[in-house]
Amino acid sequence: MSQLTTAGAPKAWGGRFATAPDARSEAFTASIMFDNRLVREDIRGSVAHVRMLGRQRIVSPDEAARIEAGLWQVWDEVEAGTFAFGLADEDIHTAVERRLRDLIGSVQGKLHTARSRNDQVATDTRLWTKGAILELSAGVVELSAALLDVAAAHMDAVMPGYTHTQRAQPVLLAHHLLAYVAMLDRDVDRLRDAYRRVDQLPLGAAALAGSTFPLDRASVAADLGFAGITANSLDAVSDRDYVLDVLNACAMIALHISRLAGELVSWSSGEFRFVDLSDAFTTGSSIMPQKKNPDVAELARGKTGRVFGHLLGTLTVVKGLPLAYNSDLQEDKEALFDTVDTVLGILRVMPPVVRTMRFNRERMAEAAVADFSLATDAADLLARNGVPFREAHEVVGRLVRRCIEDGITFADLTEEEWAGVHPVFAAQRPPLTAWESVSARDVPGGTAPNRVEAQRAGALAQLDSAREWLQGRQRELAAVMRRGSRGPA
Amino acid sequence: MSQLTTAGAPKAWGGRFATAPDARSEAFTASIMFDNRLVREDIRGSVAHVRMLGRQRIVSPDEAARIEAGLWQVWDEVEAGTFAFGLADEDIHTAVERRLRDLIGSVQGKLHTARSRNDQVATDTRLWTKGAILELSAGVVELSAALLDVAAAHMDAVMPGYTHTQRAQPVLLAHHLLAYVAMLDRDVDRLRDAYRRVDQLPLGAAALAGSTFPLDRASVAADLGFAGITANSLDAVSDRDYVLDVLNACAMIALHISRLAGELVSWSSGEFRFVDLSDAFTTGSSIMPQKKNPDVAELARGKTGRVFGHLLGTLTVVKGLPLAYNSDLQEDKEALFDTVDTVLGILRVMPPVVRTMRFNRERMAEAAVADFSLATDAADLLARNGVPFREAHEVVGRLVRRCIEDGITFADLTEEEWAGVHPVFAAQRPPLTAWESVSARDVPGGTAPNRVEAQRAGALAQLDSAREWLQGRQRELAAVMRRGSRGPA
Amino acid sequence: MSQLTTAGAPKAWGGRFATAPDARSEAFTASIMFDNRLVREDIRGSVAHVRMLGRQRIVSPDEAARIEAGLWQVWDEVEAGTFAFGLADEDIHTAVERRLRDLIGSVQGKLHTARSRNDQVATDTRLWTKGAILELSAGVVELSAALLDVAAAHMDAVMPGYTHTQRAQPVLLAHHLLAYVAMLDRDVDRLRDAYRRVDQLPLGAAALAGSTFPLDRASVAADLGFAGITANSLDAVSDRDYVLDVLNACAMIALHISRLAGELVSWSSGEFRFVDLSDAFTTGSSIMPQKKNPDVAELARGKTGRVFGHLLGTLTVVKGLPLAYNSDLQEDKEALFDTVDTVLGILRVMPPVVRTMRFNRERMAEAAVADFSLATDAADLLARNGVPFREAHEVVGRLVRRCIEDGITFADLTEEEWAGVHPVFAAQRPPLTAWESVSARDVPGGTAPNRVEAQRAGALAQLDSAREWLQGRQRELAAVMRRGSRGPA
Amino acid sequence: MSQLTTAGAPKAWGGRFATAPDARSEAFTASIMFDNRLVREDIRGSVAHVRMLGRQRIVSPDEAARIEAGLWQVWDEVEAGTFAFGLADEDIHTAVERRLRDLIGSVQGKLHTARSRNDQVATDTRLWTKGAILELSAGVVELSAALLDVAAAHMDAVMPGYTHTQRAQPVLLAHHLLAYVAMLDRDVDRLRDAYRRVDQLPLGAAALAGSTFPLDRASVAADLGFAGITANSLDAVSDRDYVLDVLNACAMIALHISRLAGELVSWSSGEFRFVDLSDAFTTGSSIMPQKKNPDVAELARGKTGRVFGHLLGTLTVVKGLPLAYNSDLQEDKEALFDTVDTVLGILRVMPPVVRTMRFNRERMAEAAVADFSLATDAADLLARNGVPFREAHEVVGRLVRRCIEDGITFADLTEEEWAGVHPVFAAQRPPLTAWESVSARDVPGGTAPNRVEAQRAGALAQLDSAREWLQGRQRELAAVMRRGSRGPA
Repeated sequence: MSQLTTAGAPKAWGGRFATAPDARSEAFTASIMFDNRLVREDIRGSVAHVRMLGRQRIVSPDEAARIEAGLWQVWDEVEAGTFAFGLADEDIHTAVERRLRDLIGSVQGKLHTARSRNDQVATDTRLWTKGAILELSAGVVELSAALLDVAAAHMDAVMPGYTHTQRAQPVLLAHHLLAYVAMLDRDVDRLRDAYRRVDQLPLGAAALAGSTFPLDRASVAADLGFAGITANSLDAVSDRDYVLDVLNACAMIALHISRLAGELVSWSSGEFRFVDLSDAFTTGSSIMPQKKNPDVAELARGKTGRVFGHLLGTLTVVKGLPLAYNSDLQEDKEALFDTVDTVLGILRVMPPVVRTMRFNRERMAEAAVADFSLATDAADLLARNGVPFREAHEVVGRLVRRCIEDGITFADLTEEEWAGVHPVFAAQRPPLTAWESVSARDVPGGTAPNRVEAQRAGALAQLDSAREWLQGRQRELAAVMRRGSRGPA
Repeated sequence: MSQLTTAGAPKAWGGRFATAPDARSEAFTASIMFDNRLVREDIRGSVAHVRMLGRQRIVSPDEAARIEAGLWQVWDEVEAGTFAFGLADEDIHTAVERRLRDLIGSVQGKLHTARSRNDQVATDTRLWTKGAILELSAGVVELSAALLDVAAAHMDAVMPGYTHTQRAQPVLLAHHLLAYVAMLDRDVDRLRDAYRRVDQLPLGAAALAGSTFPLDRASVAADLGFAGITANSLDAVSDRDYVLDVLNACAMIALHISRLAGELVSWSSGEFRFVDLSDAFTTGSSIMPQKKNPDVAELARGKTGRVFGHLLGTLTVVKGLPLAYNSDLQEDKEALFDTVDTVLGILRVMPPVVRTMRFNRERMAEAAVADFSLATDAADLLARNGVPFREAHEVVGRLVRRCIEDGITFADLTEEEWAGVHPVFAAQRPPLTAWESVSARDVPGGTAPNRVEAQRAGALAQLDSAREWLQGRQRELAAVMRRGSRGPA
Repeated sequence: MSQLTTAGAPKAWGGRFATAPDARSEAFTASIMFDNRLVREDIRGSVAHVRMLGRQRIVSPDEAARIEAGLWQVWDEVEAGTFAFGLADEDIHTAVERRLRDLIGSVQGKLHTARSRNDQVATDTRLWTKGAILELSAGVVELSAALLDVAAAHMDAVMPGYTHTQRAQPVLLAHHLLAYVAMLDRDVDRLRDAYRRVDQLPLGAAALAGSTFPLDRASVAADLGFAGITANSLDAVSDRDYVLDVLNACAMIALHISRLAGELVSWSSGEFRFVDLSDAFTTGSSIMPQKKNPDVAELARGKTGRVFGHLLGTLTVVKGLPLAYNSDLQEDKEALFDTVDTVLGILRVMPPVVRTMRFNRERMAEAAVADFSLATDAADLLARNGVPFREAHEVVGRLVRRCIEDGITFADLTEEEWAGVHPVFAAQRPPLTAWESVSARDVPGGTAPNRVEAQRAGALAQLDSAREWLQGRQRELAAVMRRGSRGPA
Repeated sequence: MSQLTTAGAPKAWGGRFATAPDARSEAFTASIMFDNRLVREDIRGSVAHVRMLGRQRIVSPDEAARIEAGLWQVWDEVEAGTFAFGLADEDIHTAVERRLRDLIGSVQGKLHTARSRNDQVATDTRLWTKGAILELSAGVVELSAALLDVAAAHMDAVMPGYTHTQRAQPVLLAHHLLAYVAMLDRDVDRLRDAYRRVDQLPLGAAALAGSTFPLDRASVAADLGFAGITANSLDAVSDRDYVLDVLNACAMIALHISRLAGELVSWSSGEFRFVDLSDAFTTGSSIMPQKKNPDVAELARGKTGRVFGHLLGTLTVVKGLPLAYNSDLQEDKEALFDTVDTVLGILRVMPPVVRTMRFNRERMAEAAVADFSLATDAADLLARNGVPFREAHEVVGRLVRRCIEDGITFADLTEEEWAGVHPVFAAQRPPLTAWESVSARDVPGGTAPNRVEAQRAGALAQLDSAREWLQGRQRELAAVMRRGSRGPA
């Protein structure tokens, strides 16, 4: 995109200072290495600001039009990749202003009327964050869609359900996959909450106290597609909740995917052999010719650490800070950008990983009934015949112990042996196949095929609803940016 | 309340085991030291479960009635403080069952039909969490109310607004306080989001796969006041998002209060002298007779650390865990309880701290105009008269530098000197009082008295809405618990 | 031990205050619920202080003797469990003083001469921390010893070595276990570093600036067994590095054990079946009669989260605090105590878990050579015969692919087929057993039996050295406490 | 330096794979964007490896010489900035190998004999970390030196000592500054501990189990300047303690500087006015012409958050991972690099900030005696005359209360009034100047001028010792790298 040079810019605040900044200080405080990502949001925000200044006659309509035209020229340079900025620009806002002055001369100086870096940065970041939340939501939706498609293709496959990493009861593979869809549903919900809270325009708060100019904040909000304006100017410039809401939502997404990724790692091990990950999403070893490593899944799990780290780091930054703006808050951006990039990276790579994995259905089915996974069914049968469950549990527990000692399974027991375990079993044998077992768990949310089908239908409906919301917001946001590119109305 | 003894209980799972648990193992895995807090939720959940078992004829109505009656007897013992449990009970659920067996005999064994510890614990915790969220919301609302009352009492007081801990522009004291109300508003919003997500009944998920009994989950949800049922049984027992949502909401509350608390510490220092904290909310020194320390505020700030720690710790616990339930998840409870206790503790002590502090309004007013805090007003005046703001900033910046070098303030400048600074100042002098300055910031969210008044009115309306929601939920939840105490319907 | 009552005590700082503390404030700021653990250290520290006051004639030798005698009386009450204290005592230091006054009257008032709570608390905590570090070290040493013993019993067992959770190359089981011993070695090293840094006496720093009395700090340090005295009084009362050093060392211990525990969980799964954990260290399920859950290992892994949380929380507490003491620092103690308790709990339960597990050596041996784990050996053979390793890797990689496609293993290949893969294999076949493979890795640190034996010998020597250090320090510390109980010298 | 292009490289592990990696997968797993920082360490490590392969006749001496020569050619290209690499290279190790093959042909393929990426990456990172620790130590030493110089220039200046952000007792400004030197001393100690533990060569561990080639690991360690070799190959490739030790040491450095930085922010506020930061290390406001913001100090404080975040994130990454290497561990590098860069950035900018600040000594001196900061001295006087300290505290506490009510200070009291307070004061008045007060705190570590002078001398000696250690290690490490550049011995 744009180039990072060392071409300098006059500071926006030199008048009061006798000495120029120290180079070490400049390098330490510069943010342009990362805040240049906000360049479009910055230009678009300035366009909205200057339009309003013109409408309110704070600057003349003609001046407003010239400034806006200049801003679109900078925008075009950004698009063309010819907009150059450098460390000496301090931040992207200064770089844009500098370029604008080159293009339109001193009238540029009127752009910053009734505005401060504090509300400007907050506006840019909120605008960027809205877009990021939509991208994240789209990524979550895509992963859900992948899981749902894979589930649909395997509605008849069983696998062991685990607790404590021990085989517990058979479940449908689709049921297991849908558990992740349920988590991702909540993630979308959380992202929507974050979107609702970030969707307030801070511009007009100025440095901290509001402006002495007759601003029309509501019209700027409308122009930029914000649902409302912030209620308190001190809060508007010192608040970073909207960053933390996203960091938290991302931590939850990463958390959920870390569990899925961890399972893929286990499932592709020589011990499980439940899935065969595509060659395209695994890597080899530089020394061991036979290795096929679930690298992508491991990294997806590992990257959770940095996402948690950013959340914690940013909470720590804000903790105990007095009102209103403090430079410590400049630290929010790298955490936000890296978190969003990291989670988007995970969300992009996981759907194809999921879609291309091949299940070893025979092995899963075999494992599903091993290790006495049908013992609960046996105890339930007793309970259904009037045995208190606690006693039924004890009876079947002892049977399991005996079978282990004798090295046999339930399937090896004769009718007489069953009858000897408990009179109920003389009349009726407990289920001995995974399919009987899963079919019997016929309660809402349970693993019976019809129930899993119902879950899938519900999840698809949720997905549609999420997509509808998402596409609506994406259209709005794109329109905001496009409305910009047409120039002044 | 109830007493922690060493009286033991038979394990709920002994049958399969040849060897008894090791004492070290029992001590290490026991949770009754902390999960005894869930005793009422556990009993109430069991009541709902057994009522449904009865309605569905999974146990006979008579058995259901006897079990329910026994459960209420245990409840009464809890209320009376005579319910004794001990380390050997492993967890509170076992303790309740043991006592129930003492009271009603072997029919107790039918209570655990179609239920597992996994869905039982999740149900208890969600029910408890709903109550905790309401308590937290009430606490946040009370702190907002205190801040609003104090703001109302000081609508005519000015103070320095700060950025970078440097005096920046005068603001109304009420405006500053309302910034915190804005943060707390978002906190209530976040708590409501958490409430919405926790409000799903997991009971019926059984161990992980659902039950083989014909459960009516919806009716249990209705009995317990849940808005719905969880959609996927594997997710239902492995999900801890509802804990993390509360930990995150609490981290944000603590974060906001840490900022307020930090300001109270600064403001009561010998350097600021803005507030005098009540003797009742400060402490002395064991060695220095003159000291009056803002202990409560410091601790409120400091306790933020542990709240962050619990959030991070719990995220770390869940990260990478395979489905479904794993014992690692047992670690959620202490983090949840201590977080809620800590934040409730802060929320209880802060309102009286805020209400009893006395402001040194003269000193605040004096500071509000010191350090050239009205310089922006001067630059704005130039800008309003057509000088590009960047140039106006430069002109006033140089004036500030000259004044500092000469050791004078704006108030010391003669008419000629003003005129010499810029021709605009020949015709019109910039504001020289804080009141003029704040009044001029007459934009929505700004610090002008009418705007702050509008903010206050808006905040009061928000508070009413929060209270309405809160009281509605509290009534519902109390009714759920009362419905219990009346015995089966 | 001692009892927590509500019996109050006069504050140590009442004179300057017109109003009594608010009950909410008292409850919020009280620390006696947790700092009562420091009661012995507090008494012993006071004994050392008053002895020195007597030696320096700051109080009369007779007064010093009476105070010391009274302090030992309180000590005896603590030992007897008859020392009662309550919330109104605020902290344990006040409780001890109150009781002392009851016992010896107003001369007690001279004990606090030339001392402040600030240096007193720091002294108590450092003294306690020294003991805690030794206990932790002993726990780490015991776990190493258990691992070493188990390794010794299995020097001839092979297992698959993993990377990326994929079978990679055969290793000795003992080699795998010794990897954990290497981690624990570093943990002891870290604890020793922490011990060295905590071992400085802060007493004499008084509130923050030192005392106006002619203290002999060195003699107090000698009496209490500290290696030296802190160099700067402001630092002495505001420093919490000694807590953070322990929290960090504990985080590392927990981290290492979380890896071991995670492996035990996997190894005892139905997929691995490498180990059978003792019934005594597993638990069952309330619903599934067949389950045997690796509860202890899961919890040991899960508890890592809270240990990380305490570290992070405490770092957050101290961050940005001005000098010298601030009440925020009171938050250090619960984090320290819970961390030490948690890690000691893990360290106590893990050695028997490790010692009682039974390995399924046949299954491990079988798995060790599965999945082409000997492919590297084949490539190495080519490389030893002059084939560039990169090419050898490619050749063997292709062979693996072919075998997978044909559903065969290396063992199934005929001599001709080997020869067809590469001329080198015509002359010499690569190793086909795990034992050949491990024996060939005969480099320092490698998995060849003689090398593993050397590692074990080295680890035993390390253990001896750690124990020697540990026992020396334990004797010293015990002597300090005993020296106390004999009364004044 | 070198350029990031998209020029690809053959994978080091292609043979076994039927399908090429997916582009998304490649982008997700590539590490060359950040691990290119290890390029010199990678080349130097390879040189040491191939020299040993030659000495051991694992490759022929001639081959070894040709490979080494080629490696130095790559090194020269790195130095010249002409070494191009790209995303398709996956990691820097592959990029170096690719270039080497371009330069010397297929003999390059022998370099990777008896080595894996796993031990290679660990070696490179440890070598890099050794250098980083030395740089960090140098930075800490420089900040200590700056503080010591400033302290030396102000040995006669007094200021208020604070507890609870309340003026407590007068201290010497130098004493306050030396408290930070004491913290930094411990930081150097911690860095030296980290250095000792990282200083073990992992090369020779190969993938995880050691090599089948007759490696001479000790000679490689000697060539690369490592103090020893790692004891266990599984641990060698899965251990990241050496990263975490540095992250922890950096967290502590950042923690300490966050406190200093926070004080500079406060001290330069309009309320304190204790220091005037140089224009060169402050910034202005885009809207408020009068502002001079302590930007550098705020950012130094704020950046602590990300350092904590990286520590936590990396702990989280490693938690629960099975042995040996897992790709999750690839996440260690960005955390390490960013932490080191961040802390070095802070350490570079803080010394000039400290050296250029001007103290307002009059204001500090005035504040030092305000707010009854000499009250302890008065109580001590009573105690020295036999009044139990608790009583003396009470007496002076009441006097303070009376003075506050009457609006007077101790200096305003007449001889009679003093006598009325306590008979002791009839004979002797407590000190009324800060100088008397500080001089009286004549204990080791106390604030009396001679004691502070002694502290300064001690700190200078510590600094010399740290520098000696540092320079010794720096010479060694530089020699290792130089020894490389001379080509094969």
